[in-house]
Amino acid sequence: MLFDRLGLSLHYIKPRTTVTSKQQVKMFHGKELWQVVSMASRWTRASCSLTLNLYRWNKTFIHTSSCHRKCELTSKRYQVKRGNYNQINDQNIKFFTELLGPHRIIEGESELEGHNTDWLDTVRGVSSVLLKPKTTEEVSAILTYCNQHRLAVCPQGGNTGLVGGSVPVFDEIIISTNLMNKVENVDTWSGVVTCQSGCVLEALDQHVADFGLMVPLDLGAKGSCHIGGNVSTNAGGLRLLRYGNLHGSVLGVEAVLASGEVVDCMTAMKKDNTGYDLKHLFIGSEGTLGLVTKIAIHCPSRPQAVNLAFLGLSSYENVLKTYVAAKSKLGEILSSCEFIDRSSLECVEENLKLKPPISSHEYYMLIETSGSNGTHDEEKLNIFLEDVLGSGIVDDGTVASEPSRMLHIWGLRERIAEALHHEGYTYKYDISIPLSHFYKMVEDMREHLGSKIIRCCGYGHIGDGNLHLNITTEEFDKEVLNHIEPAVYEWTSKVKGSISAEHGLGFKKRNYIHYSKSSGAVTIMKQMKKLLDPNGILNPYKVLPDE
Amino acid sequence: MLFDRLGLSLHYIKPRTTVTSKQQVKMFHGKELWQVVSMASRWTRASCSLTLNLYRWNKTFIHTSSCHRKCELTSKRYQVKRGNYNQINDQNIKFFTELLGPHRIIEGESELEGHNTDWLDTVRGVSSVLLKPKTTEEVSAILTYCNQHRLAVCPQGGNTGLVGGSVPVFDEIIISTNLMNKVENVDTWSGVVTCQSGCVLEALDQHVADFGLMVPLDLGAKGSCHIGGNVSTNAGGLRLLRYGNLHGSVLGVEAVLASGEVVDCMTAMKKDNTGYDLKHLFIGSEGTLGLVTKIAIHCPSRPQAVNLAFLGLSSYENVLKTYVAAKSKLGEILSSCEFIDRSSLECVEENLKLKPPISSHEYYMLIETSGSNGTHDEEKLNIFLEDVLGSGIVDDGTVASEPSRMLHIWGLRERIAEALHHEGYTYKYDISIPLSHFYKMVEDMREHLGSKIIRCCGYGHIGDGNLHLNITTEEFDKEVLNHIEPAVYEWTSKVKGSISAEHGLGFKKRNYIHYSKSSGAVTIMKQMKKLLDPNGILNPYKVLPDE
Repeated sequence: MLFDRLGLSLHYIKPRTTVTSKQQVKMFHGKELWQVVSMASRWTRASCSLTLNLYRWNKTFIHTSSCHRKCELTSKRYQVKRGNYNQINDQNIKFFTELLGPHRIIEGESELEGHNTDWLDTVRGVSSVLLKPKTTEEVSAILTYCNQHRLAVCPQGGNTGLVGGSVPVFDEIIISTNLMNKVENVDTWSGVVTCQSGCVLEALDQHVADFGLMVPLDLGAKGSCHIGGNVSTNAGGLRLLRYGNLHGSVLGVEAVLASGEVVDCMTAMKKDNTGYDLKHLFIGSEGTLGLVTKIAIHCPSRPQAVNLAFLGLSSYENVLKTYVAAKSKLGEILSSCEFIDRSSLECVEENLKLKPPISSHEYYMLIETSGSNGTHDEEKLNIFLEDVLGSGIVDDGTVASEPSRMLHIWGLRERIAEALHHEGYTYKYDISIPLSHFYKMVEDMREHLGSKIIRCCGYGHIGDGNLHLNITTEEFDKEVLNHIEPAVYEWTSKVKGSISAEHGLGFKKRNYIHYSKSSGAVTIMKQMKKLLDPNGILNPYKVLPDE
Repeated sequence: MLFDRLGLSLHYIKPRTTVTSKQQVKMFHGKELWQVVSMASRWTRASCSLTLNLYRWNKTFIHTSSCHRKCELTSKRYQVKRGNYNQINDQNIKFFTELLGPHRIIEGESELEGHNTDWLDTVRGVSSVLLKPKTTEEVSAILTYCNQHRLAVCPQGGNTGLVGGSVPVFDEIIISTNLMNKVENVDTWSGVVTCQSGCVLEALDQHVADFGLMVPLDLGAKGSCHIGGNVSTNAGGLRLLRYGNLHGSVLGVEAVLASGEVVDCMTAMKKDNTGYDLKHLFIGSEGTLGLVTKIAIHCPSRPQAVNLAFLGLSSYENVLKTYVAAKSKLGEILSSCEFIDRSSLECVEENLKLKPPISSHEYYMLIETSGSNGTHDEEKLNIFLEDVLGSGIVDDGTVASEPSRMLHIWGLRERIAEALHHEGYTYKYDISIPLSHFYKMVEDMREHLGSKIIRCCGYGHIGDGNLHLNITTEEFDKEVLNHIEPAVYEWTSKVKGSISAEHGLGFKKRNYIHYSKSSGAVTIMKQMKKLLDPNGILNPYKVLPDE
């Protein structure tokens, strides 16, 4: 076992970290991984989260996502019926082996375990084959063949999705973008990077950092997630507030349709109004309309100065007032505005033994600034803090600008998901709600669920109206689930929110789409699916509701 | 004649200004309109451009776009064949009259003249009916009827488009969004405005200004163009560099399909990943997939301080270096970076008698900053200017922060199109080119055309790689056109640029789509058109190439 060889107890492995070479793995010997990560300056806080992906000595990918494997088969837990697809046979395997060679086709239950299960341990498929193409042409050849032979496929990036979109439901062939990780070009004049879809977000960000640029996307899973997966799920994250969404910042997409046809919407131009902008079909459609193979993204200048404030507040009304004050006083340097409730922070303190930098409050906010002039930024931040502290909107606060302190404070926010996982099973909801109703949802659900659960807490991207509502029980409990759903969706629908802000619908939320979309809109979606994937082989059982 | 009643000589009317009430029109009596506009602080520089839209005393819209009407019929000039649509008859008119009442159905050649012709005087249709719905339901009823009776329609906003997309080619029924101008809501917590599609961009911006917000879009035609037209054409403009494109900032769209079905993608949430994001179908598809009726847009905070630098440079290489220095030194406050060549500025000097604030140079740049702290912004601008002037990259420059001086300087950039119009016929090209090749295009075209033309000049949004290449002759000359096209498109295609950066394809460029899009992509576009508008009644002869 790799961990034993490294002399590491599993207890110390802080999950979801990418280790990319033999040399880096050696560094861990006898160390706690979290300490190593904290020390190594090029590894950001985002490296620490919930699953552990390791490259073996031979650089073959192993995904050892969980210490325990208690998750029932998806098909059993959710009672879903297999589609009318063929099962893979020896002749199919022979074709793929001839196409990719023997080392890029993976078979065997244990080898595929991490790829068959999502990292939340909530959905599990039984795929027996994983393919690792390196080029668009290989993806095209695979899909052409699968379409002709009616074989269902599941595209997979870093497998960090939260709605079961990136793992097979039955025996779909997994097509991994793991080896499609070439950065093709960085245009330094215009600030545009062009790359394959399997680039790990963090690695891509490091690559463009050498040119003074940054990828305009940051999220907890950055150490594992692939940029192609980010685009396919229209990932949001921590800095959408500042840099906008991927529909705005992705300039070009190359995708392969179910038929194997390559759709070339690759441009590195910021403006291109020649016909319907087809790339948007592939942004956020979770691999059901096409498999994204290449991407061009506009990258803004990397900030020269970053500051982080951690604030304690006594009422939700004051949280809102603080957000508005931050927009006004910090203006263009505001790069993140995050919200944590008392219960979420207590969970991190209790389960991960992390210590907050201020005393206990009902609500907390993380406000980050990123700018081109450190002196100006500090002045703006001071004016803002004097305002909110002076007027009593904020009760207490601290500011950090040293990397290690910022890392610690960000850990309090980013490791909440991990902390919740310690309590057993997590029911995760990622919803958009008008700010006036934002926290009422948590209060109402807490009251609604009473003593049936361990915890009901809320945190998230308040600057985007995006609440992460989380509920924990010791084990998966169907009765609790029935108490939560569809109540949580009905509540959201009533205030015209979105039942999936940034996680997508994937497998787990596909049948709740009508809480946020009209039946007319869903009909058009189905027609588009039929048009682009008539046999329905691309990531079946995802996004669109069951017939 | 309205102008006579105002005592104004046509010579003095500076075109494309919106006058919205009797009181405002009275102000013009005996004055030069441009003077009035300059004086009136709430009318921005954008009020001045190329056509004049006036509301009459009774507030009925008259479009008196041009002083001369030399434009041939589009069908004759471009040899295009009418589609298999029915011609409008008395029974149809009766239906529309019953639906809208007698005052919202306009007939008659002279009444429709401005609506049948684009403001460049390059394309002209022969529609005999214009309808003015006020609600989504009315639009739905109109389209249901037209689809059933196979009547082609042309949606029209402010009719400020540059590629003939907003005027009929033959006798399409014009559906004007002119009376759909209600602002429905401004969410001040999240900064989102929800409105009907016929709101004039400038009026909408003024509306949200009262809440400390701004519409993240600014362009020369803002005084006339409708936000629905902006969305339908994915308009770019002067501040895309800072605030991104409409695919990023438009949150919700409501559109009516050809069948009359209302597609509700109206959300005011910043994040919504529930199914395929259908709103992108309607952004930039120029009214060929659906008629946009409502919009929700995210509006950033209105800047507290604005500064404008006008710089003179001796080489294109230095223009590029200055852009990179601006990104680095001005960072997050850079809100516009525009480029003008010597010939463009000379055209403004000669034809409009405007005087530049610095002596003559080969190239000019306008660099605008917008920020939340005036002192900080000035410091950043000074550091930037010391850098570029000190190192000799920039030869000369001046900075303005007073509204009147900024207005004057912006006029030099924004009135180039108007100045070119004075020379006769303008061949306009709006292309995206990698920055390394940006100005080479102008030089090559100038050499290619030699003495056949009056002028070949280039200006545009260099921060977005977006060149406006303009060529003038005294009158439309088919031979000159054949010399320009397809050469200009071939050149663009060779460097992987876009043959339409922000203007769209409309009627005039539809058959050049393959210079920027693959045949596979065009096939998918045609399939989508067939899916959403099987009878092809919505804005025919636009965007997609002829069969």
